[in-house]
Amino acid sequence: MKAVVYKDTFEVSVEDVPEPRITGPNDAIVKITTTNICGSDLHMYEGRTNVVSGTVLGHENMGVVQEVGPGVERVKPGDRVSVPFNIACGACANCMRGWTSFCLHTNPTDGVDGAAYGYANMGPYAGGQAEYLRVPYADFNLLELPPGDELENDFTMLSDIFPTGWHGVELSGMEPGDVVAVFGAGPVGLMAAHSALIRGASQVFVVDKEQDRLSLAAEIGASPVDFSTGDPVQQILDATGGYGADRGVEAVGYQAHDPTGEEHPELVMDNLVQVVRSAGGIGVVGVYMPQDPGAVSERAKQGRVGFDFGSLFMKGQQVGTGQCPVKRYNRQLRDLIVAGHARPSFLVSHELPLAQAPEGYQHFDNRDEGWTKVLLKPAA
Amino acid sequence: MKAVVYKDTFEVSVEDVPEPRITGPNDAIVKITTTNICGSDLHMYEGRTNVVSGTVLGHENMGVVQEVGPGVERVKPGDRVSVPFNIACGACANCMRGWTSFCLHTNPTDGVDGAAYGYANMGPYAGGQAEYLRVPYADFNLLELPPGDELENDFTMLSDIFPTGWHGVELSGMEPGDVVAVFGAGPVGLMAAHSALIRGASQVFVVDKEQDRLSLAAEIGASPVDFSTGDPVQQILDATGGYGADRGVEAVGYQAHDPTGEEHPELVMDNLVQVVRSAGGIGVVGVYMPQDPGAVSERAKQGRVGFDFGSLFMKGQQVGTGQCPVKRYNRQLRDLIVAGHARPSFLVSHELPLAQAPEGYQHFDNRDEGWTKVLLKPAA
Amino acid sequence: MKAVVYKDTFEVSVEDVPEPRITGPNDAIVKITTTNICGSDLHMYEGRTNVVSGTVLGHENMGVVQEVGPGVERVKPGDRVSVPFNIACGACANCMRGWTSFCLHTNPTDGVDGAAYGYANMGPYAGGQAEYLRVPYADFNLLELPPGDELENDFTMLSDIFPTGWHGVELSGMEPGDVVAVFGAGPVGLMAAHSALIRGASQVFVVDKEQDRLSLAAEIGASPVDFSTGDPVQQILDATGGYGADRGVEAVGYQAHDPTGEEHPELVMDNLVQVVRSAGGIGVVGVYMPQDPGAVSERAKQGRVGFDFGSLFMKGQQVGTGQCPVKRYNRQLRDLIVAGHARPSFLVSHELPLAQAPEGYQHFDNRDEGWTKVLLKPAA
Amino acid sequence: MKAVVYKDTFEVSVEDVPEPRITGPNDAIVKITTTNICGSDLHMYEGRTNVVSGTVLGHENMGVVQEVGPGVERVKPGDRVSVPFNIACGACANCMRGWTSFCLHTNPTDGVDGAAYGYANMGPYAGGQAEYLRVPYADFNLLELPPGDELENDFTMLSDIFPTGWHGVELSGMEPGDVVAVFGAGPVGLMAAHSALIRGASQVFVVDKEQDRLSLAAEIGASPVDFSTGDPVQQILDATGGYGADRGVEAVGYQAHDPTGEEHPELVMDNLVQVVRSAGGIGVVGVYMPQDPGAVSERAKQGRVGFDFGSLFMKGQQVGTGQCPVKRYNRQLRDLIVAGHARPSFLVSHELPLAQAPEGYQHFDNRDEGWTKVLLKPAA
Repeated sequence: MKAVVYKDTFEVSVEDVPEPRITGPNDAIVKITTTNICGSDLHMYEGRTNVVSGTVLGHENMGVVQEVGPGVERVKPGDRVSVPFNIACGACANCMRGWTSFCLHTNPTDGVDGAAYGYANMGPYAGGQAEYLRVPYADFNLLELPPGDELENDFTMLSDIFPTGWHGVELSGMEPGDVVAVFGAGPVGLMAAHSALIRGASQVFVVDKEQDRLSLAAEIGASPVDFSTGDPVQQILDATGGYGADRGVEAVGYQAHDPTGEEHPELVMDNLVQVVRSAGGIGVVGVYMPQDPGAVSERAKQGRVGFDFGSLFMKGQQVGTGQCPVKRYNRQLRDLIVAGHARPSFLVSHELPLAQAPEGYQHFDNRDEGWTKVLLKPAA
Repeated sequence: MKAVVYKDTFEVSVEDVPEPRITGPNDAIVKITTTNICGSDLHMYEGRTNVVSGTVLGHENMGVVQEVGPGVERVKPGDRVSVPFNIACGACANCMRGWTSFCLHTNPTDGVDGAAYGYANMGPYAGGQAEYLRVPYADFNLLELPPGDELENDFTMLSDIFPTGWHGVELSGMEPGDVVAVFGAGPVGLMAAHSALIRGASQVFVVDKEQDRLSLAAEIGASPVDFSTGDPVQQILDATGGYGADRGVEAVGYQAHDPTGEEHPELVMDNLVQVVRSAGGIGVVGVYMPQDPGAVSERAKQGRVGFDFGSLFMKGQQVGTGQCPVKRYNRQLRDLIVAGHARPSFLVSHELPLAQAPEGYQHFDNRDEGWTKVLLKPAA
Repeated sequence: MKAVVYKDTFEVSVEDVPEPRITGPNDAIVKITTTNICGSDLHMYEGRTNVVSGTVLGHENMGVVQEVGPGVERVKPGDRVSVPFNIACGACANCMRGWTSFCLHTNPTDGVDGAAYGYANMGPYAGGQAEYLRVPYADFNLLELPPGDELENDFTMLSDIFPTGWHGVELSGMEPGDVVAVFGAGPVGLMAAHSALIRGASQVFVVDKEQDRLSLAAEIGASPVDFSTGDPVQQILDATGGYGADRGVEAVGYQAHDPTGEEHPELVMDNLVQVVRSAGGIGVVGVYMPQDPGAVSERAKQGRVGFDFGSLFMKGQQVGTGQCPVKRYNRQLRDLIVAGHARPSFLVSHELPLAQAPEGYQHFDNRDEGWTKVLLKPAA
Repeated sequence: MKAVVYKDTFEVSVEDVPEPRITGPNDAIVKITTTNICGSDLHMYEGRTNVVSGTVLGHENMGVVQEVGPGVERVKPGDRVSVPFNIACGACANCMRGWTSFCLHTNPTDGVDGAAYGYANMGPYAGGQAEYLRVPYADFNLLELPPGDELENDFTMLSDIFPTGWHGVELSGMEPGDVVAVFGAGPVGLMAAHSALIRGASQVFVVDKEQDRLSLAAEIGASPVDFSTGDPVQQILDATGGYGADRGVEAVGYQAHDPTGEEHPELVMDNLVQVVRSAGGIGVVGVYMPQDPGAVSERAKQGRVGFDFGSLFMKGQQVGTGQCPVKRYNRQLRDLIVAGHARPSFLVSHELPLAQAPEGYQHFDNRDEGWTKVLLKPAA
């Protein structure tokens, strides 16, 4: 079958690879109908991870069940499903508590809890930017979708970024009526803003410098803040009569840049600590790494982010972090899509056949005007 | 009246100062029966704050109501009361939500929410290491105690360190059955350990290097870990079959020292990130400062603590921080003392008349063997 | 001044009564701009309570601060304020925990915790269907509103029914994405539906038989269910493919009637137990009474409601009940109104001068077509 | 193999039945080492359910894994395990949310969510009062125990009554420092009292009339209340200076008797509503039934329990109900047993070989003095 394969820094190609097969009684094979390029795929693409050449990429997957192992009872061939990016066993202590993003069983990598498809350090699982995907623990992991092909570009956001944005809001401790500041108007940031508004935020600021992204933020009812035109903290303070925000969402990660393009891993956390009120909360879903060989300083290479912890403490803020346990949210988000209250497809800019994946990666990585979210359609 | 007055770095004296008076309708005057020296008083004593010479110190106060303003209804002269260290208005948005430690109304200091008695940056309020203390918003702030003088040395812990240790456990997200690692066996750390055990922790580790403090930890049922004899993270991993802890409590603060005595503000957070499991939590009640002129590096002087945020994110840990809202807990803790389930007086090492406060400060600051907690008795 | 006075069953009149005065240092006098007739006023009007003749009615009040006692600091004359219907001291154990609706201090009535303005059993406080109102503990109780007169008919819902509807949803345990069934399309039920939608419900059913009310439900995006045309449980099961609802809100109370008009106090709870899924929740804000001399059976006269507790247990449902602690929600709801995300004024049908209060009571009590919510304007 | 078989009202016998076999890929066979008689087995024994003659009884099971199906990965033959009484699939919406007691997949009985071993209406699963037991979804359901046979009589409480008592406390909303009133000193009530004390209750009352049970309550640190000597509500009010309790646990169920032995299904709920403070909570783990052919009144036969709902509402109490989702708690409770903080074996009165099960049922059902908890040992 055809699949998107990581070759080297800034190089992916579409190649023939062996089709996946059922290898355990709880596996399913899913025929992929839509698979997205994720912002975190770009960490690999840019050479900021240790991903191995030859890896099939892709952890934002959906499709139709093709075949199931003998232990699978709930899901049947022909079912349309969303595949959460986390691969979780469903039976360990963390899965038990709902933290499928930190499954203790599925990732053999030393010191890493939680597994994913086609991702550096996340276990030996092929990705889904391909015609077919093997899904372990299928009954536990797969989410049923209404049959057919309606709402495909909304449902495809259920595998990662819609729940991830939602998780950022959840980690921030947001309550209805709160003012929320989202840093980063990439796909996750925009999903966080969409989520906060669905959950009853009174006002949501979205901070970025890309005009196309800021326009999307405005379109969904958020207040765009362009940090290239002035200090974003001051802009939000001004817009709220000095109040700031009740909650903040970090949707940028360690590769934050200042307006001049210089990388400052502590920049976004510093801004959030300043703009969020005392006793407020910050949800961090932008990715930070324990090791980052490409970082700007020795400290940053060791994952050290020297943000203003003193002010954080003095303000009594709370911080939640980490990868999203998709299953905790995807059922409800599916229902909100079906009911018409959520429309995450608003950020889709491009639908490409699998063969054009390399162009998709290139434009998305360049943050080329208008390339906000790229979907790959293997069957197209 | 007599009061303990801050003079200069490493210098306090007991002096005559004017007695406090009712200045607003909701004030009360409390005759102090017990007032403790707090570990955080030592930040001022050591010159690591901007406290003004002449300040009456003391925020861990209890006593008997002497007089009340015309707006005070609940509390009456003769009532025995505990005085939470936070001075809170009871009516602002943060008090409303139970965050009396970040009252928006009582501290005129620019950029600081929350007030306290006799403390740097915490507002213009005299401390209670004195014969009398003025308490604003007395009905809201004061906690009634059973009359008489029984359990005095237990109840005196209700003004700050017992609730603060409890808050550290709460911020960590502890649930019954959890393994908890407390860093720091000073008074707050020991109170955190006591709290975790009362709340049903299955095992509590307490990390320090002072033998007298580690002995107290063992006495209350915790497992002492001496970091001067080996890496505390490794010791806890070894003792738990590699599991580590579900939750961690930071009860040291920015003046953390390694076994050689060198200051490393990021040391404890680094250890906690390592020892706490994925999806676990960390409660930070050890004090960090936005500015610290006496710090070891330029970064630390700005309150920047470059701990391993990359690993924190990768493990999906949650962090809660800040001063304790005493009122949220002191009523229940009082009831646990009365019922005999809590005995925080176990850490009292010295009871001194007010006149001997300077010696108390000196020995406590030196961490002299056996000086774990000093109570001052103004009436003695 | 003029005020609405309860005279006898089905009789209220507008009379001259003495103006209220500051009687304690923490009091304020509020000049009423809008005061609503509440569905629960009708319990008194219909003679189903022991309210005393001569009582000034009205607990849904807003206006402008006229005068404050010497202990009042936060609120100033000229401030536009919403007056929560609960009169709370702010300092007792229940106020502390945020349960201002069960204040232990303000109601001298034996066995009743919680006080309110102008209401049977809720303490000796005059109501606000009048030109002026005395508000105890003004700093604690009053909520500041933006100056002027904009959004008056939205803000007037903050004193009771908007928070009460919101509380019903909160007590039900609703989470975003849930299906919610609200029984009763009176003002509280409609506010509950509005609240559930603001908080991200995927679908909200509203059950009633009055067409004007059901139309309002549809207007705000809920799904009306007319119980006069068939079993409402079955209608909801049919509309959800047999699923039912995740959460239910009881917004009817003990005076529930079947389609033939017969009173059945257990009817709504029975329906809720049936329609809500296993492990779901029910929030009860419709009023039930410990004694009800006018009830249909001996059991009901004693407040006994023999609903299907066996099925409730077998389904593992949770039930929250009781009067709303308005302060827990009114700040956020105000902000949602200001931001334009909430528009509770949609249910206002009539604005009357105080003098026409008797007609307002009569039509509202008759459930006359189109009389969904009556506002009184004392200054008109 | 030998197994305890339900024959008829008041009649069980030990008979030869076929050994269970692996029937699905995710099954395990467990060789039973200890299996307890549960108070809820007596509902069947007394003919108050529709259990079918020939059913193998027993849902409180533990033992050693003998064999596993091909889909089982985590659990291995030789593992010592506790078997939660709930049979849960791990993948449905309720399992997802942690409500394994309301699994949507494992019980084919119409209208009933949740399955169990050897129990009326809980699905077609043989019980474990036998030499061997088939466990579906073994990886999800089984809890690993330390190897060997230490603490066997403590660990055997993990399958049902220790988590069930704990759940009662959880449903009540208990917080550390609370006063708790437990009605019923049967095994579940005593486990609830033990749980509340482990979790930091300040005082726990246990209400019953059997002296042996009340003595056990006193032994574990609770305060026994003998309802045969006076109104238990009044006794608790007197003992708390009129305060009552913050939380209540219902551990009796629909077969409640007054001191004269007459059955009153509403008696315990009425007492709880009275004794629990306003805004407090009640956890109901005593069993109530939708249908009860043996009940005392027509209403009770339909599961209707006409308790004082009016007072419940007026006090704003919250009620949680239903069977315990054992997996939510058993891991932590196991750890508390291993750490020595929990000792649920205190209530074991008898250990019998399987052959003596009929005597065990008879004495336990008679509430014969000293028969508090009977363990069956199939290998003895």
